[in-house]
Amino acid sequence: MFDPVCPSPLVPFRVGDKWASLILRCLEDGPRRFSELKVPLRGITSKSLTQSLRSLERDGFVVRAEHETPERRVEYALTPLGRGLLGPLDAACEWTREHWDELIDAQEAGLSRVPV
Amino acid sequence: MFDPVCPSPLVPFRVGDKWASLILRCLEDGPRRFSELKVPLRGITSKSLTQSLRSLERDGFVVRAEHETPERRVEYALTPLGRGLLGPLDAACEWTREHWDELIDAQEAGLSRVPV
Repeated sequence: MFDPVCPSPLVPFRVGDKWASLILRCLEDGPRRFSELKVPLRGITSKSLTQSLRSLERDGFVVRAEHETPERRVEYALTPLGRGLLGPLDAACEWTREHWDELIDAQEAGLSRVPV
Repeated sequence: MFDPVCPSPLVPFRVGDKWASLILRCLEDGPRRFSELKVPLRGITSKSLTQSLRSLERDGFVVRAEHETPERRVEYALTPLGRGLLGPLDAACEWTREHWDELIDAQEAGLSRVPV
């Protein structure tokens, strides 16, 4: 998941910051601990993950739950609103998949033409 | 259009930077000059508009055309790829409109709960 060579930065839609939509996707199948999020999100720093999670919490898309039993454990989960976001996110990803070649061609042509 | 009290920053989807999706929307009905984009995009600086347009050009969503007749004129227009983006953008806006009250409630609750 989220292979370093995956060109997901090409996706022209963003939810929140760079990592937010990937975090939502990681939580799709159920709650995850901080460390369980860090593994699939290769290359994310603890600081970035903390900031993205706080931002998602603040917007009401993710909830942080502390469990005391059997051992102390903190987990992050999608709220119903956060789960709702996955629908339009899927539509955006689908559009990107359909236009993949055009997006890559356009970026390659643009990089050689437009000053950065 | 784009009234300063409009809570469009609530829309949890972004295309490119803060202004990019608004620029695409401004170009929906046809090509526009730089000055014609600046008026509806209240509060945008020339520097930000230049940067956003360059970024949209680089990604192949917008094209810059110079006309020499009848007078010299530079216009910006959507490419077919850029126009295609409006579909999923509409879907994202529609989702946002449907969940407006939840988004506002969640943000208000989040701001009082989660440290910034």
